[in-house]
Amino acid sequence: MDEFSFIQSIQQSYYRQPTLLKGVGDDAAIIRPSGDDIVIAKDMLVEHVHFIKSTMKPYHIGYKALAANLSDIAAMGAIPAYYLVAISISNDWSNEELAEIYNGMKSLADRYKVDLIGGDTVSGTELVISITVIGYANRNISRLRSAAKEGDVVFVTGTLGDSQAGLHILQNAGTYKEEEYFKRRHQLPSPRVEFSLGLQQIDRVALNDISDGIASEAHELAESSKVGMVLIEDKIPVHPAYAQFDSNLQYNWKLFGGEDFELLGTVSRSDWELVKQRAQQLSLRLTEIGYVTDEKDAGKVFLQQENGKIIQLEKKGYNHLSR
Amino acid sequence: MDEFSFIQSIQQSYYRQPTLLKGVGDDAAIIRPSGDDIVIAKDMLVEHVHFIKSTMKPYHIGYKALAANLSDIAAMGAIPAYYLVAISISNDWSNEELAEIYNGMKSLADRYKVDLIGGDTVSGTELVISITVIGYANRNISRLRSAAKEGDVVFVTGTLGDSQAGLHILQNAGTYKEEEYFKRRHQLPSPRVEFSLGLQQIDRVALNDISDGIASEAHELAESSKVGMVLIEDKIPVHPAYAQFDSNLQYNWKLFGGEDFELLGTVSRSDWELVKQRAQQLSLRLTEIGYVTDEKDAGKVFLQQENGKIIQLEKKGYNHLSR
Repeated sequence: MDEFSFIQSIQQSYYRQPTLLKGVGDDAAIIRPSGDDIVIAKDMLVEHVHFIKSTMKPYHIGYKALAANLSDIAAMGAIPAYYLVAISISNDWSNEELAEIYNGMKSLADRYKVDLIGGDTVSGTELVISITVIGYANRNISRLRSAAKEGDVVFVTGTLGDSQAGLHILQNAGTYKEEEYFKRRHQLPSPRVEFSLGLQQIDRVALNDISDGIASEAHELAESSKVGMVLIEDKIPVHPAYAQFDSNLQYNWKLFGGEDFELLGTVSRSDWELVKQRAQQLSLRLTEIGYVTDEKDAGKVFLQQENGKIIQLEKKGYNHLSR
Repeated sequence: MDEFSFIQSIQQSYYRQPTLLKGVGDDAAIIRPSGDDIVIAKDMLVEHVHFIKSTMKPYHIGYKALAANLSDIAAMGAIPAYYLVAISISNDWSNEELAEIYNGMKSLADRYKVDLIGGDTVSGTELVISITVIGYANRNISRLRSAAKEGDVVFVTGTLGDSQAGLHILQNAGTYKEEEYFKRRHQLPSPRVEFSLGLQQIDRVALNDISDGIASEAHELAESSKVGMVLIEDKIPVHPAYAQFDSNLQYNWKLFGGEDFELLGTVSRSDWELVKQRAQQLSLRLTEIGYVTDEKDAGKVFLQQENGKIIQLEKKGYNHLSR
């Protein structure tokens, strides 16, 4: 298939976003913004680094690539609207597999009515996908990492460590409880878009999505907001079947594992009830896991262990650039 | 260098664009649009496919990658404002080379006051760069490929074939006239941003930038506009020193060579004088090279040869996806 035929094959037959003037098919896409702020996130996924064929089907690769970007948009309190996809593919990927990658993205895009408006397709020696997602955010809604304040409740959606548990199951044959659940959490993660949009009534919420593990993301909040943060270990939410794994793995996955794409946030105690209500309306698990301390601990994150001892957490996690 | 330190090293110390609310450093960048339309282009460049170290220094790679994207923005009649860069690098690139890639982008970004507002940095087995560029376009200015009309003048900026001539010189040791000129055209191409912005007084101009060769770009205009197009071979502008190359190479490079990043356009005869004036003000060479014919030739491009014979041109050119 040549580039032209391929672009035609992935082109949407109609667009859903009312602010789009021109999608695929010119030198650039054109949008006429509605008056809201625009948020833009971009990332890149590389075969063998971020995914391997043995644990991720092409459909999963596309789905998860877009999910990771939608998760960034959710972490800004924004509603996703558009995406662009640049992809470099090697010859050991068939046209069918390539189409399945786009199908994986499409299924998630359909759910959120997000339109594919551009990109590029080239060939290389390994599969590389870069997605750009564009969303709209109401003005004056601050979901910045720098918005945390002393005394805030620290909360997290869902359960942590699931994605790494799923990867472990995919790579280690055996009998596991809730095997399908964990695999699904690794292969088809859910960006918390609805939850984030549900918080629009609240003026100030600091949000960060958990792509690199909660320890790393909590540090980003603490550094940007110039506050300290205490996480309480036995409050960190895990799935009931999580206990089946080795306790060291459990510890590492939930704190440093990454790719759960849950939201970590902080909010004032007075707004906490409202945040809980929103999660309840969505039947989304939401857990208070700690609190924000003052600027004398700026940039530091502590873990209150089950024995009551408080240790300082390292800022480690997924680091895709190790040179 | 870890990802965090690297991101800090490329972060701008200040931003120039007044519509930026938040640049690098959160889950996404935030823009508050000014009321203009927004245009977005994205592409991907892969080592060994789009460039090789022996002909392109890291600085050139960065410069040209951004130039290609700015050229897309110019082809929409828009003014560039922001860019995001996702890069996958292999271990045979040093930190200094990586920094030079960003320096190449920065020098061009500084010239156009374009701000780097996000991206991603990962490691892989080959260098892959994906850039997303965002620009602003005045409302109601149509620079679409679909805007060409029967009777229009077909024009092109600059000279064609230079980039491929430069590559030829870089790959074939020898003595050449204007060697530095041709190499520069390959390594440091100029997007025609100022020229495109100079046309804003004119309601209708069809524009396409020449990334894949004029034959391919002319077909895109003819197909989108449902018209035919005749190009006159001896009017296609080339550099005075272009004649030193083999005549077959000359023919192929100027028609099918690509990467000149000049603008191909069509405009009504009545607006043609104004277009010429704009080019003159910028001391930019501008040449009338043909005319638009009617819908019975929709999607076809013809070449009137030097002997007067008219042949139909193939839609071929750079095709980065050959599967």
